[in-house]
Amino acid sequence: MASACVLGILGGGQLGRMLALAAAPLGIRVRCYDPDPDACAGEVCELHSGAWSDRDALARFAHGCEAVTYEFENVPAECVRFVDTIAPVRPGALALETGQDREREKTAFRDMGLGVHAFQRVSSREQLHAAATSIGLPCVVKTCRGGYDGKGQVVLRAGAGEEVIARAWEELGGGALLVEQFVAFEREISMLGVRGAGGTFAAYPPVMNRHARGILRESIAPAPDLDGEVVRDAEAHVRMLMDRLDYVGVLAVEFFVVQGGGRTRLLANEMAPRVHNSGHWTIDGAVVSQFENHVRAVCGLPLGSCAMRAASAMVNLIGRSPTAGEVLMAAPSARVHLYGKDGRAGRKVGHATLVGDEALREFEALREVAARCERSEG
Amino acid sequence: MASACVLGILGGGQLGRMLALAAAPLGIRVRCYDPDPDACAGEVCELHSGAWSDRDALARFAHGCEAVTYEFENVPAECVRFVDTIAPVRPGALALETGQDREREKTAFRDMGLGVHAFQRVSSREQLHAAATSIGLPCVVKTCRGGYDGKGQVVLRAGAGEEVIARAWEELGGGALLVEQFVAFEREISMLGVRGAGGTFAAYPPVMNRHARGILRESIAPAPDLDGEVVRDAEAHVRMLMDRLDYVGVLAVEFFVVQGGGRTRLLANEMAPRVHNSGHWTIDGAVVSQFENHVRAVCGLPLGSCAMRAASAMVNLIGRSPTAGEVLMAAPSARVHLYGKDGRAGRKVGHATLVGDEALREFEALREVAARCERSEG
Repeated sequence: MASACVLGILGGGQLGRMLALAAAPLGIRVRCYDPDPDACAGEVCELHSGAWSDRDALARFAHGCEAVTYEFENVPAECVRFVDTIAPVRPGALALETGQDREREKTAFRDMGLGVHAFQRVSSREQLHAAATSIGLPCVVKTCRGGYDGKGQVVLRAGAGEEVIARAWEELGGGALLVEQFVAFEREISMLGVRGAGGTFAAYPPVMNRHARGILRESIAPAPDLDGEVVRDAEAHVRMLMDRLDYVGVLAVEFFVVQGGGRTRLLANEMAPRVHNSGHWTIDGAVVSQFENHVRAVCGLPLGSCAMRAASAMVNLIGRSPTAGEVLMAAPSARVHLYGKDGRAGRKVGHATLVGDEALREFEALREVAARCERSEG
Repeated sequence: MASACVLGILGGGQLGRMLALAAAPLGIRVRCYDPDPDACAGEVCELHSGAWSDRDALARFAHGCEAVTYEFENVPAECVRFVDTIAPVRPGALALETGQDREREKTAFRDMGLGVHAFQRVSSREQLHAAATSIGLPCVVKTCRGGYDGKGQVVLRAGAGEEVIARAWEELGGGALLVEQFVAFEREISMLGVRGAGGTFAAYPPVMNRHARGILRESIAPAPDLDGEVVRDAEAHVRMLMDRLDYVGVLAVEFFVVQGGGRTRLLANEMAPRVHNSGHWTIDGAVVSQFENHVRAVCGLPLGSCAMRAASAMVNLIGRSPTAGEVLMAAPSARVHLYGKDGRAGRKVGHATLVGDEALREFEALREVAARCERSEG
C-alpha cells in the first residue's frame, strides 16, 4: 500500500477519532487500542480491543506501527513502557508519568520557571493538617493521581477545623495528596504547544476556558485582554518544559490568570500530555489543527502553522447527543463535530465551533443548543 | 448508537474517502460499495465489496442506509435504480443518466439556456461524415458514453477526408457518437453548485482548471479575470439545470471560456453529477467543503457557506504516491491530501492545496513535487 505508515493510538475515544480523521489525509493509517470494543474511534479507523494489561493484545496492536501515541493520560505507564519496546511511544513515558502525578507536574512547572501555587505533598492525616496550617486556609486538596473533570479534589475553606480536614482525608481516599494554596483567580486559560522530534516548537494562541461543575464548557480563542509579554514568557517556559521532557507531540497547560500588585500573573495549574479539549477550536479556527500537528510531530513530519484563521469560540456538547441538523438549525454557521457516542449525563458527545466575527453572533444560540442537550441528557 | 444516520456511497475511491471524512464529524456513518475490496475509502469507513450487478450484495449494502449517493458517474443506472428501491439515491438516476450521455447532457445544457457548442448525434459512418460537413471542420468527435480523462474522443482537423473520418469512426468503437463544433477556447473553468432537497442552492466561486494529457492538473480559485455578470448568468442557468433535474447534492459543470466579438462567452462542456476534482480546494479554501456540502444535501441537512476563505490553488499528485513529508519539505504551507492508493502511471494518488497569498508563493515548488511524482510513476 502507498500509505505504509501506521500510527498506533492508545485509547479510542473522541480524541483518537479526531486524530484518525486528521491523519488520513496525510496518508497515515491509524490503529486505536481501547478496552471498549465500541470505542467511537472505531468508526473511522482500525480498532483493537483489549485490557491495558493484556500484553498479547498490546503486542499485536503495536506490531507494524511506525509510532504510537496516547489519547488519554490515564493509560498505565507500565503499558506505555511495554508498547515502547515494540514501537516508539511519543510523547514518552516520562511525560505521561509527569502528567499523572500532580506533585511531579507542579515540581516540573516550578523547575522550568512557570508560576505555580504554593504546594505540598502529604501522605497522612497529620501531614495534611500540618500542610493546611503552613500553606494557610483556604487551600485545595487533590489526589496526586487519577483526578479528572473536577473529581478528586476538596476545598478546605477558611476556618476549617480538625474534623473537616479529617473528612477531606477520608473523602479523597487517604492516599498521596497535594495541598495547594487557594488563589482567587480571574479566569482560566490554556496554552497548547507542539514539539517535533528534532526540537522544533510552535504554540497556538492561548484560549480562555469556562468550566462548570468541573467540566470544560467553552473555549474562546484568543483569550481576550492578556498582556503579550506575560503570554510570551509563559510560552517560553512551556517550551523549556517540553524540551526537558524531551516531549514530542501536543501538550496542553492550564493556567489561572491572577491579578495582583498591578500586574497579571499566570499560575500553571495542570498539564495534559496529549491533544486537549481546549484545542478543539483549531480544527476550524487554526491553519493546522492540534490533531494534525500532533500526528505530524509523532510521525516525524514538519510541524504546521498554529496561526489563527479568525477569532473562534468552541462549545462542548454534553449529555444527549444532538443531530448535526439540530445544531445547524440553531447556529447555521457552526462547524459541527459529533463523536458518534451515545448520550449520557455529563458525557462529552460533541462540540461545535464558530469562526469569525459574523459566525460569533450565533454564540448564544449555540450555547442554548448545548444547554438543551444537557437538560435532556439521554 | 448516537450516530444512527448511515450514508451509503456507490464507489469507494478517493471521492468516497473524502466524503466519509467529511461525514464523520456530522455524526453520519458512511458505508461504501465498490467492486474493489481494497478501495481506498475502506481505510476510513465501512466498505462493502461486490459487482455492480450483484443485487444481493447491493441489497445488503443499501439496507439500513438513510440515503445513498454515488461518487463516480459510471455506476450503471440499473444499479442506482435498484438501490433506490431500498434507500433513496441522491442525486437520482435522472441526473446520473443525463451525465452519462453526452447528447442528453448537451441538450439539457442548451434547454436551460447555457451556451453550448453546435453538436449533433450520429450513429453511423455516413451520419458522421454528414455531421462533420454540416458542423464544419475542425470538429471534435466523442463517444456518447463512457469517456473520461480525455479518453473516447478524436479531433477531426481542417481538411480531414473520408479516410480520416472512417478511422475516427473505427477508433471510437462505432457506437453512438457526438460531433461537436471545435471552438478555440482561452481556458477552462468549472462551476460547482450544491442543491438541497428543498431546492436551496449555493455555488462555489468558479475555478480555472489546467489539464494536460486529458487529466486535470491544477485548479485556481477563484478563476481570474472573469466578468461578474457572465458568471452570475451561468450560475443562474446551472441552478435552473439542477432544479430541472430535481438534483440533490453537488454538481460540477465544466465551461470553456471563449472570447469573440468583444465579449466573453461560457460554453458548457460537460457535467459531473458528483463531487469533483476541481472542487478539492474547498476542503481547505472554503468555509464548508464540497464534500461536507454534498453530505449535508443528500442527508437533508441545511447547506453550508460556499464562500472562499482566501485565494487557493490545488495541484493533483499523479503517478507515484509521495509521502506527506516529501510534499511538506518542498511546500511547507501545503495542505496535503493523500488517498492511500498505490502509485501507477496516470493515477491520481493525492492532491495538495495552498490557501492565501503567502502560501501561494510555494506554487512552483508544489508543481515541482507533482512533476517528480509523475516522472517516477511507481
